Amino acid sequence: MTSAQMKTFTAVKPADGSNYGVPIKEFNQSEVNDAIDAAARVSDELRQVSPADHAALLRAIAASIESHRASLVESACAETALPEARISGEITRTTMQFELFARLVETGKHLDVVIDKADSNYSPAPRPDIRKMNAPLGVVAIFAASNFPLAFSVAGGDAASAIAAGNAVVAKAHPSHPNTCATIQLAIKDALKKCNLSPDLYSIVQGVDPQITHWLALHPSIQAIGFTGSETVGRILVNLGAGREVPIPVFAEMGSLNPIFITQEALSERAEALATGIIDSALLGSGQFCTKPGLVFVPENEVFITAIRQALSGKSVAPLLSKTIADRYSSSIAELSKLGSVEIIAGASGDNGFSVTPTVFITDWKTAEKNPHLLEEHFGPTTVIITTDESEFLSIADQIQGQLTGSIHCATNEDVTPLSSALSHRVGRVIMNAYPTGVAVTSAMQHGGPWPSSSSHTTSVGVDAIYRFLRPVAYQGFDQMNLPSPLQDSNPWKVIQEVNG
Amino acid sequence: MTSAQMKTFTAVKPADGSNYGVPIKEFNQSEVNDAIDAAARVSDELRQVSPADHAALLRAIAASIESHRASLVESACAETALPEARISGEITRTTMQFELFARLVETGKHLDVVIDKADSNYSPAPRPDIRKMNAPLGVVAIFAASNFPLAFSVAGGDAASAIAAGNAVVAKAHPSHPNTCATIQLAIKDALKKCNLSPDLYSIVQGVDPQITHWLALHPSIQAIGFTGSETVGRILVNLGAGREVPIPVFAEMGSLNPIFITQEALSERAEALATGIIDSALLGSGQFCTKPGLVFVPENEVFITAIRQALSGKSVAPLLSKTIADRYSSSIAELSKLGSVEIIAGASGDNGFSVTPTVFITDWKTAEKNPHLLEEHFGPTTVIITTDESEFLSIADQIQGQLTGSIHCATNEDVTPLSSALSHRVGRVIMNAYPTGVAVTSAMQHGGPWPSSSSHTTSVGVDAIYRFLRPVAYQGFDQMNLPSPLQDSNPWKVIQEVNG
Repeated sequence: MTSAQMKTFTAVKPADGSNYGVPIKEFNQSEVNDAIDAAARVSDELRQVSPADHAALLRAIAASIESHRASLVESACAETALPEARISGEITRTTMQFELFARLVETGKHLDVVIDKADSNYSPAPRPDIRKMNAPLGVVAIFAASNFPLAFSVAGGDAASAIAAGNAVVAKAHPSHPNTCATIQLAIKDALKKCNLSPDLYSIVQGVDPQITHWLALHPSIQAIGFTGSETVGRILVNLGAGREVPIPVFAEMGSLNPIFITQEALSERAEALATGIIDSALLGSGQFCTKPGLVFVPENEVFITAIRQALSGKSVAPLLSKTIADRYSSSIAELSKLGSVEIIAGASGDNGFSVTPTVFITDWKTAEKNPHLLEEHFGPTTVIITTDESEFLSIADQIQGQLTGSIHCATNEDVTPLSSALSHRVGRVIMNAYPTGVAVTSAMQHGGPWPSSSSHTTSVGVDAIYRFLRPVAYQGFDQMNLPSPLQDSNPWKVIQEVNG
Repeated sequence: MTSAQMKTFTAVKPADGSNYGVPIKEFNQSEVNDAIDAAARVSDELRQVSPADHAALLRAIAASIESHRASLVESACAETALPEARISGEITRTTMQFELFARLVETGKHLDVVIDKADSNYSPAPRPDIRKMNAPLGVVAIFAASNFPLAFSVAGGDAASAIAAGNAVVAKAHPSHPNTCATIQLAIKDALKKCNLSPDLYSIVQGVDPQITHWLALHPSIQAIGFTGSETVGRILVNLGAGREVPIPVFAEMGSLNPIFITQEALSERAEALATGIIDSALLGSGQFCTKPGLVFVPENEVFITAIRQALSGKSVAPLLSKTIADRYSSSIAELSKLGSVEIIAGASGDNGFSVTPTVFITDWKTAEKNPHLLEEHFGPTTVIITTDESEFLSIADQIQGQLTGSIHCATNEDVTPLSSALSHRVGRVIMNAYPTGVAVTSAMQHGGPWPSSSSHTTSVGVDAIYRFLRPVAYQGFDQMNLPSPLQDSNPWKVIQEVNG
């Protein structure tokens, strides 16, 4: 292909709308296929390495990403307009995710080795020797999010968990931060080479053509999909995955409104602090978090509403991630502003690049019920505050769709178990007296709730994310020499084994 | 509804084609909805009971089923033509499955409680108190299989695991053994009442109208589906589940050919025993097992083929489960018999009811490759023996579709790791020197392989089947009094808790 035929696109700086970085090659279908085919050819490599070597790879990737910190900060800040402290924190979180998986992988706990030795007295029938372990799936396709250029991008939680599970990965870079993704690819391929593994185990594909999504999702060698993004694209991927000749699982993390419920008692105690906390959480990262509180249910209270007005007054946010996101935000705000019985509170408008005006809507439950648009996700620095009697909370909680989180603000020693129980049916994480933004990467974290917040019952944050990309395989009646290492009695890899219960 | 309007159907005895038992009411859509709505209203009940009480329910169900043993043996033998010993064994397996889940549930291990206490030094950010546990999904729809009237039917592994997970269950009875299913419903509702739980937590729906499948799969209160049956119906359910406004997971266990590979060394050692073993396994239960060996790859060997002919000679099997299955079998056999370059070996034809003639086909890999019909599943007492050079085994293993099992027969101390590894990519269980029929219900069992043998990476046999019907929920920043019992520091239910790793 001559350079005249090669399609390219260029990153755009949200701060001023100017181009950033070198032209990025747009992948055509045959190039996407090549990346997947190359990954498929080597997809068995990580099965063969010991947990120690596997963990060493994950740490080498973390170190390699760390060694590119300066260049990653520069490109990610330019490509997203997110502040340096946020990008720097995301790099740390990204490398820490690899470290957490390294600590898991070196124990072999994720292999879930279960050994049931032969038992001639077993009921209802004698039991042969059966040993089970988790195995990687093969090649996993990862679709990067735009709003976390590191921690949920091509080396984010999805990619890290897929590699930690032993899969080869082909990641679709988000076109809003292509230079950052290119540096990550460089870093990971370097780490693979240093560990004497094939660089084809990890590749990114780039492009703005939506067909790339189809090429990836429908390639027969792709065994699973990890995705973070909109419900619209998530639904397309779920349908593509289910409709294939051989269906594959699609682990999509999509939209969430993250409703907050404030009890009368909490309001009496600390209306102003709650108002400030909600505005801070809703505007954090310019409101571009999957955990942004998009709905707040609160008894009528003038102190609270006044504090909301004050908290927003004069407040501006950094430009949004892309022109598409900024345009969609502005048109949503314009639509909502046309509704009757809705108070509109605007912050300060930014004047550079993809800036928008943070805007909060205040209405009552009766109005909201009649205007479903108020109850939908609006990505960006906005939230909808709905005044309602506390006695309506349970019925509202029963009506909301699936969410990543649901929060309750209450007083000390207040019994909120009915509301907490109702929310636990609708969300993946119930939060008490805190705000949904900020997701701790820890074993007990659950980042994934009922549809449409997620397409499965798994988590995309925390070490349990690894189990999405593993599959159990049992070995029955095997002699020791033919068993995979983790299942042998001599346990050469020293993995955790559960033997006879 | 007057009896004139009420549609019914009647069970048929495969032994002679005559009717059996009372007329069975065919459920219409509103009756299906009623069963689901009633289940949804009480679907929270099992969340509230302690592990000890939950285990007591599972044991009460086992005891109640046991108390109906005589009547279950009578109806199941009549409705399936399976021998009494098999039915009796299935009842034991069914009650034992509830007992195994009781033992798991009383430990609370299935709740996967993980407690990460607040840590202000956590990197990259201070960590709040986060506690995670598994919760049931709500109402689960179970579709019973025809070939296991107890162990994979309305109280089989799918239903037992869904109840053990704490869900309400609405089970679609298979119309080939409706009286057996009616007795099971009676037994389970009795057990629920004895345990002071709502009988609506478990109901069956009956009918021959294929629309029932759609009514169940599309009802908004159904949160997951467990299915055992054909790839055709499994695919329909997977598409229905993915296409809903709120998609739900469909755990389908479908077709499998369970290929057997015999090495030259094994053949030299014991050709005759292998031939007998294969015919016994293929004809067991009249060849109506999901684990029936449907393909046998073996080097050319006259002793082996002669032994196959002898093993089949004069052998007859019990009638098949239904006229549909018998007709489909006979037409498959007729189709395969028309192919050239295929030797046909027939056993003895039965002369009663839905009897058929066990038939084995012998051909070479070149012929099989050109006739995909030979490589498809044919339910019933048949298998296809394919002669091929051992050097072709790896390439064949790489080409086969997803299977529940793959077996290798080899000599002592023979290295078969390349073949075992290739099979491990295609199957859920790799078996050495044994036959695939007979699935031990144990922790290390994996009954589920890549599509089309299963629609997910889960198992439908063994205690791990429970995890299909659970979903993690995290609680962040909660005070003790508002936490669910399993997450409290005082651990009143004494469940297994993982605290700070």
